Amino acid sequence: MTDPLNASLEKKNGYDYPGSPRSVGWTRPGRVLLADRTNPLPLDCGDSFYPVTVEYETYGRLSPAKDNAVFIIHALSGDAHAAGWDADWEKDNRPWRRDRPGWWDHMIGPGKAFDTDRYFVICANMLGSCYGTTGPWEINPASGKPYALSFPVVTVEDWVRLQVRLQDYLEIDRLLAVAGGSLGGQQALAWAINYPHRIRSAIVLAASARLGAQGLAFNAVGRQAIMNDPFFRDGNYYEGKPPAGGLELARKLGHITYLSNRSMEGKFGRRFQNGSKPCYRLDQEFSVESYLEHQGRSFVQRFDANSYLYMTRAMDYYDAAGAAGGDLNKACAGIGGDLLLIAYSSDWLYPPRETRTIARAMLANNRPVSFIEIPSDYGHDAFLLETDQTTPLIESFLKRCNR
Amino acid sequence: MTDPLNASLEKKNGYDYPGSPRSVGWTRPGRVLLADRTNPLPLDCGDSFYPVTVEYETYGRLSPAKDNAVFIIHALSGDAHAAGWDADWEKDNRPWRRDRPGWWDHMIGPGKAFDTDRYFVICANMLGSCYGTTGPWEINPASGKPYALSFPVVTVEDWVRLQVRLQDYLEIDRLLAVAGGSLGGQQALAWAINYPHRIRSAIVLAASARLGAQGLAFNAVGRQAIMNDPFFRDGNYYEGKPPAGGLELARKLGHITYLSNRSMEGKFGRRFQNGSKPCYRLDQEFSVESYLEHQGRSFVQRFDANSYLYMTRAMDYYDAAGAAGGDLNKACAGIGGDLLLIAYSSDWLYPPRETRTIARAMLANNRPVSFIEIPSDYGHDAFLLETDQTTPLIESFLKRCNR
Repeated sequence: MTDPLNASLEKKNGYDYPGSPRSVGWTRPGRVLLADRTNPLPLDCGDSFYPVTVEYETYGRLSPAKDNAVFIIHALSGDAHAAGWDADWEKDNRPWRRDRPGWWDHMIGPGKAFDTDRYFVICANMLGSCYGTTGPWEINPASGKPYALSFPVVTVEDWVRLQVRLQDYLEIDRLLAVAGGSLGGQQALAWAINYPHRIRSAIVLAASARLGAQGLAFNAVGRQAIMNDPFFRDGNYYEGKPPAGGLELARKLGHITYLSNRSMEGKFGRRFQNGSKPCYRLDQEFSVESYLEHQGRSFVQRFDANSYLYMTRAMDYYDAAGAAGGDLNKACAGIGGDLLLIAYSSDWLYPPRETRTIARAMLANNRPVSFIEIPSDYGHDAFLLETDQTTPLIESFLKRCNR
Repeated sequence: MTDPLNASLEKKNGYDYPGSPRSVGWTRPGRVLLADRTNPLPLDCGDSFYPVTVEYETYGRLSPAKDNAVFIIHALSGDAHAAGWDADWEKDNRPWRRDRPGWWDHMIGPGKAFDTDRYFVICANMLGSCYGTTGPWEINPASGKPYALSFPVVTVEDWVRLQVRLQDYLEIDRLLAVAGGSLGGQQALAWAINYPHRIRSAIVLAASARLGAQGLAFNAVGRQAIMNDPFFRDGNYYEGKPPAGGLELARKLGHITYLSNRSMEGKFGRRFQNGSKPCYRLDQEFSVESYLEHQGRSFVQRFDANSYLYMTRAMDYYDAAGAAGGDLNKACAGIGGDLLLIAYSSDWLYPPRETRTIARAMLANNRPVSFIEIPSDYGHDAFLLETDQTTPLIESFLKRCNR
């Protein structure tokens, strides 16, 4: 693809620029209707839902044997733009994509962990999100108004069901791998459990079989922050001001759970924002406060509050052992392919001890599994940051599965 | 004291009823003016503040030698009513006190850790709080309106300065001990550092020399929840509806940090509120959600949102090593009496490793210190709950100091 915007864009902020040999270059999303009246999408909540449009991107080339496809699955606030530079950012009004590549760009590209010289990489935005796939922000054709909270409650399993439809649309019988971190990792696990014949392997990073009570509690507080916002108006805010204050607050809270105590201590400690002495004020005194402020503010520029409600709720509901009556061993009995589980030592949202329960369930079933706990201070965000430690594990796992 | 309300009140919910031999019985708060125009209270922020009224309670009897007084210091949301049953709850419009004794009743009373047969126990409400001591809810005599956010930002050291005035008022030269948990423990430490000659010993539970970056971040999010509330109106809500939604949210968030992951898992796990199947809804699905809801709702009945801002800010600012340029060893060099430090293994707000830094600083100064880490799943709240483990430690420590 040629460079439609700026042929001279250089590498910046440590990113590979579009013309770099390690970048997938400029990208454009595809959009496809995957559920309509004649073929609605069955949801766990009981609804048969349509229409559903999915936004997706692909990088690399599908082999003639169609055996080199890797489905990358994004987490809570991610999108289909996993790598490269969005050539359509201006047309699609996504200014936050101007100065940075896709969310996993350092893992996807020529010579990278997901090597686009070898693999055909797919990534799709999730149902209920706000990046091109149908979500609560979209006009409900039945009412002519945005769905808002009339949007159905969706689950990780619903997402995977829709991803299989994309797989069918792309005419790929069997994926070489599905891979994702956090909520994306849970989807990879759900693929392995629910669609074992459609994948050769699954790569699960920084995820566990279910969220714990503490995680449920944090999510509930975040959602309440949104619902408390005076601009929320039961989700019907699309014609007015959005509940930015509430969403900002939810994001700040979420962000604390993505970092480790130690990394926060190292990065901010108790530093004052201005100078060495306290100003004795109720707001914006410590560096960590202004950092969170920045995180919250930039998030509300790019995310929809209703989507946040739905995505976190799906995160709450996921329980890999749920369909097997709480028995994770039984739930994993049908997994056919290889499983690579990567946990990060300081992750307290999906802690390694929880990921380990999946490894145990695989071993109890005599299924092939690799469980690696990577030492890291980055907390849950390590799956986005520990590139050097994570890359060789994924590289060799994919090569083995691709034999 | 006779029983003005109900002579037949029996022991309930595991509490010692007023007539029980282990209860201090019915209590009535005292209120005293400790700073006025001629004798204002100097504050760390630079203000000279007056008038300041302090609400306090006492239990037991001061010995003729005045050497048996123990000052109990409450935490973030506590009050002067540390033990017994408030005889004035109706008159003072504090209905939440009707069915429960003071916040540390299982630790204070005849034969208890703080044995009122031996010791004269004092507890006072902190400046800026909302239980009888001057705070942002009070009418500013200069303006005729509540202080609201014109109230000065107060610190742990300010609180201790005011407590020393109460000590003077009670004509006690030297306290046998100051004791508190959490933010109360930090005040006990501040006493030891700033007023070594006014105490014989200090008991610090579930507290560290300073709050970490993660704790600062949680507090900032909680305060923002209050300030975001449409009823907050820059703190000037006393004539209208209070910002209950924001305060509720702040409390829920705080509450998560008071419990351990493990105790939440054991108490709630992923249980649904209604039955065994999910209802696919955005709110009130999991038990832990309704528990937090209850905690939040009952809190807003008894606490003032502005006070919450001030109390958490004081928690943020406290740094035992601050006045010594960040050198905790130097800060502790002047401590004269004995120090008992009790930490709880699963406390992640003031973790044992942080409490240990105080012990190290004492040892570096050849000062007497006992540091005990109590194994507990209760998290930060363990200082309120691990009575059986904590009691003998305090009992023997006080006896030794009282020799």
